[in-house]
Amino acid sequence: MEAKLKELKALLSEVYDLENVAALLHWDQSTYMPKGGAKARGRQMAVLEKLAHEKMTDPKIGRLLEELIPYGESLPYDSDEAGLIRAACRKFEKASRVPAEFMAEFTAHTAESYQAWTEARPADDFSRVAPYLEKTLEYSRRMADYFPGYEHIADPLIAFSDEGMKASTLKKLFAELRRELVPLVKSVTDREPADDSCLKKQYPEADQWKFGLKVIERLGYDFSRGRQDKTHHPFMTKFSLGDVRITTRLKENDLGEGLFSTIHEAGHAMYEQGIQREYEGTPLAGGTSSGVHESQSRLWENIVGRSRGFWEHFYPELQRVFPDQLGGVPLDTFYHAVNKVQPSLIRTDADELTYNLHVMIRFDLELAMLEGTLAVKDLPEAWRERYRQDLGVAPPGDRDGVLQDVHWYADTIGGVFQGYTIGNILSAQFFEAALSDHPEIPGEIRQGNFDTLRGWLTENIYRHGSKYTAEELTKRATGSALAIQPYIRYLKGKFGG
Amino acid sequence: MEAKLKELKALLSEVYDLENVAALLHWDQSTYMPKGGAKARGRQMAVLEKLAHEKMTDPKIGRLLEELIPYGESLPYDSDEAGLIRAACRKFEKASRVPAEFMAEFTAHTAESYQAWTEARPADDFSRVAPYLEKTLEYSRRMADYFPGYEHIADPLIAFSDEGMKASTLKKLFAELRRELVPLVKSVTDREPADDSCLKKQYPEADQWKFGLKVIERLGYDFSRGRQDKTHHPFMTKFSLGDVRITTRLKENDLGEGLFSTIHEAGHAMYEQGIQREYEGTPLAGGTSSGVHESQSRLWENIVGRSRGFWEHFYPELQRVFPDQLGGVPLDTFYHAVNKVQPSLIRTDADELTYNLHVMIRFDLELAMLEGTLAVKDLPEAWRERYRQDLGVAPPGDRDGVLQDVHWYADTIGGVFQGYTIGNILSAQFFEAALSDHPEIPGEIRQGNFDTLRGWLTENIYRHGSKYTAEELTKRATGSALAIQPYIRYLKGKFGG
Repeated sequence: MEAKLKELKALLSEVYDLENVAALLHWDQSTYMPKGGAKARGRQMAVLEKLAHEKMTDPKIGRLLEELIPYGESLPYDSDEAGLIRAACRKFEKASRVPAEFMAEFTAHTAESYQAWTEARPADDFSRVAPYLEKTLEYSRRMADYFPGYEHIADPLIAFSDEGMKASTLKKLFAELRRELVPLVKSVTDREPADDSCLKKQYPEADQWKFGLKVIERLGYDFSRGRQDKTHHPFMTKFSLGDVRITTRLKENDLGEGLFSTIHEAGHAMYEQGIQREYEGTPLAGGTSSGVHESQSRLWENIVGRSRGFWEHFYPELQRVFPDQLGGVPLDTFYHAVNKVQPSLIRTDADELTYNLHVMIRFDLELAMLEGTLAVKDLPEAWRERYRQDLGVAPPGDRDGVLQDVHWYADTIGGVFQGYTIGNILSAQFFEAALSDHPEIPGEIRQGNFDTLRGWLTENIYRHGSKYTAEELTKRATGSALAIQPYIRYLKGKFGG
Repeated sequence: MEAKLKELKALLSEVYDLENVAALLHWDQSTYMPKGGAKARGRQMAVLEKLAHEKMTDPKIGRLLEELIPYGESLPYDSDEAGLIRAACRKFEKASRVPAEFMAEFTAHTAESYQAWTEARPADDFSRVAPYLEKTLEYSRRMADYFPGYEHIADPLIAFSDEGMKASTLKKLFAELRRELVPLVKSVTDREPADDSCLKKQYPEADQWKFGLKVIERLGYDFSRGRQDKTHHPFMTKFSLGDVRITTRLKENDLGEGLFSTIHEAGHAMYEQGIQREYEGTPLAGGTSSGVHESQSRLWENIVGRSRGFWEHFYPELQRVFPDQLGGVPLDTFYHAVNKVQPSLIRTDADELTYNLHVMIRFDLELAMLEGTLAVKDLPEAWRERYRQDLGVAPPGDRDGVLQDVHWYADTIGGVFQGYTIGNILSAQFFEAALSDHPEIPGEIRQGNFDTLRGWLTENIYRHGSKYTAEELTKRATGSALAIQPYIRYLKGKFGG
């Protein structure tokens, strides 16, 4: 069995490398590639995707797994070998059920659809992407149908990134959250809005860049195994456990934009950097779900990065970097500015409180499309209607409405947005558990010391990679299943009263 | 046959893409990769190399070629299809004769050997690399033996990069060149050496960088299909005909270093950028030999970039960028500084006249090692002895002696260095032919206009990619076979009397 496991690992390692090389192609495309490289780059990514898929569905892997599954079940559940066999099974099954030709077709389609979106959005013209979206919806349904036996057609798509989650569970969870959020938003927006003009002064990019790097280095992002570059849309990407990069974008007249996106991506990256190095080359070497991943970016960005304690430490440094802009601005004003609550049109710019309302709108609309109760042509109006209802604002056109997020134009419809809200909920649940083990954490944060917190997260979440599902991980780390109470307690503590 | 050709192209295109992705991995490793990424990067490159080799030796390609060869021979020799079939045959044969296991072993060995060299050179310790070099010599001989029927054991290795060339031809050619060079070097070094102190002042990197970019843009390097980054060792690399990048290195106290390396690499890049776009994805989409490639880097770097006419145009601009350093330095002084002749230890820093003497030393020593008349352990002393004889200087240790070039520590022994001198010879032969067609070129260069020259090179060399061998290309472009006379005429005109 040892020999078979070794053989399996060798086969999986090639898949891992090919997938990581594809990630590098994408990183280069977003950071440094001259525009002339675009056509060949698409071809190169398709070749690698095809090869990775071929290798992952190699019947040899299937045969090895058949023999190894009983072996894995005979091992302690917590052993790395058992976890590896479980993770390999999940990956093999997913890859095997979806035919290679379908994947190739779908990838080619999303490339075109994405291209159309990049033109449709600035032109504020939904009609350009509507035909693509119709096809994407069809592809999304077909994709789900490769995994029959579902309760809701969105379930297989949700399970791709958040295994164990289903539409019915999420609907219930989101409804519960909304019941708490709506009055809380109302109570805050009834008060005088915070003055965030101090963030909108002129902040030279180079200084913002340097300050951001200093902050995330202090948080624990390891630059010997990573780096930051600039892109239009910030993201985190990994080429191995020794090379986990992030990107950011800066605005000269908006200090919050770059700083919090840097912290956000560093949160994702610290998760990947914290995975035990022995998992390198296996399906265990990655975050376990999109929700848990997002919990880490949001924990560092919001719970830590927008906390008063954090700024008690960093604000004097920030004032020294920008004496003209912030020298006369009290900490309290700055703290309220970075935590200003205001219903708005754009999800990625939304404050902590209203953010989840944006996510839920998308989640409900995509379920309706998948169910067939909402036609693509009616989507823009449905979008505006929901924004009016939930946030009291509505976009005049579609540019800042249904065209604002890339997701539906570059991926399946369904299966992506839920992770953002699951992440917010989990971020508070994990943080509360860390504080219960280490009540000294808030004091340490005020000193600019993040070691205990990062240590707890590494021990309880990061190092395990994908050994446990999100559900298992949450129970092990917090003693209970996913629950909204810690998040609500956190939000009420910060914004209530 | 059309269908078979199409099938062949599809198979070759995958190989092309995999090879180009491997090139991107290498580029990233040299430019931006954090050090933590090194281990996985080696594995990723090995996976891609293995896959590209597997794909290139696919028996399907062999069968298609068997059927297509007679078809190709029935087509006009100049047709793209005929050229493609010829180039595919050469590539298939080379890949098929060398077993995949041998290549994997050799690649792993050179990775270790390179690593040892990076430590041995700063430590000035040849003994650390000697055992690797012994093995490399063995591998090089075995590599050659996969191509039996050679006259000299170096011939197959030479043919890898300069097809059509043999040790015997090169020995004759180099002897002829040496007979002309030695007295010319002597006559120049008997004179008072040029004063190049104006190049050794303090030149801020950012200004050097900007000026270099402006120069190569004017020469015709297309930034929409390329970019420049910094690396320890400058190089040119290509990921598609739409993405041909260069790298450079700058020294704050040596203006020539960065500027001429930028022009040199841009020369390589303009060759690749000039290949007709229809060749993309085929073995025609690359320079035809290492000698012809080097002819283009040297033509732009030396014949153009170190000419008086070039600086008549650019020197006033350079003075405006560096008024404190160059404001009081006359053009004539600057021109002589960038053309200073002085026997020295380091090949890459050598002037135009002595450069080839460096190359010939390496060429003779590697032939002797392959023949078995020079043992690896005696190499350092043989190196010093030859430097004393040919250049009148000798390194005290090995750091600036036998350890100075990476080549023997990262590739075969034999088959690489000859390209540098072939390139120098060809650069003058091509330039002379261009001038004979367009006597207005020198006048245009004085105006900062390089269109006619680049147009001639594109028409006669660049656009053909690998359709013709170096020999065919030289005859077509210049009307005669490779010949040293134009190069001697050029050197005598510039440095004689």
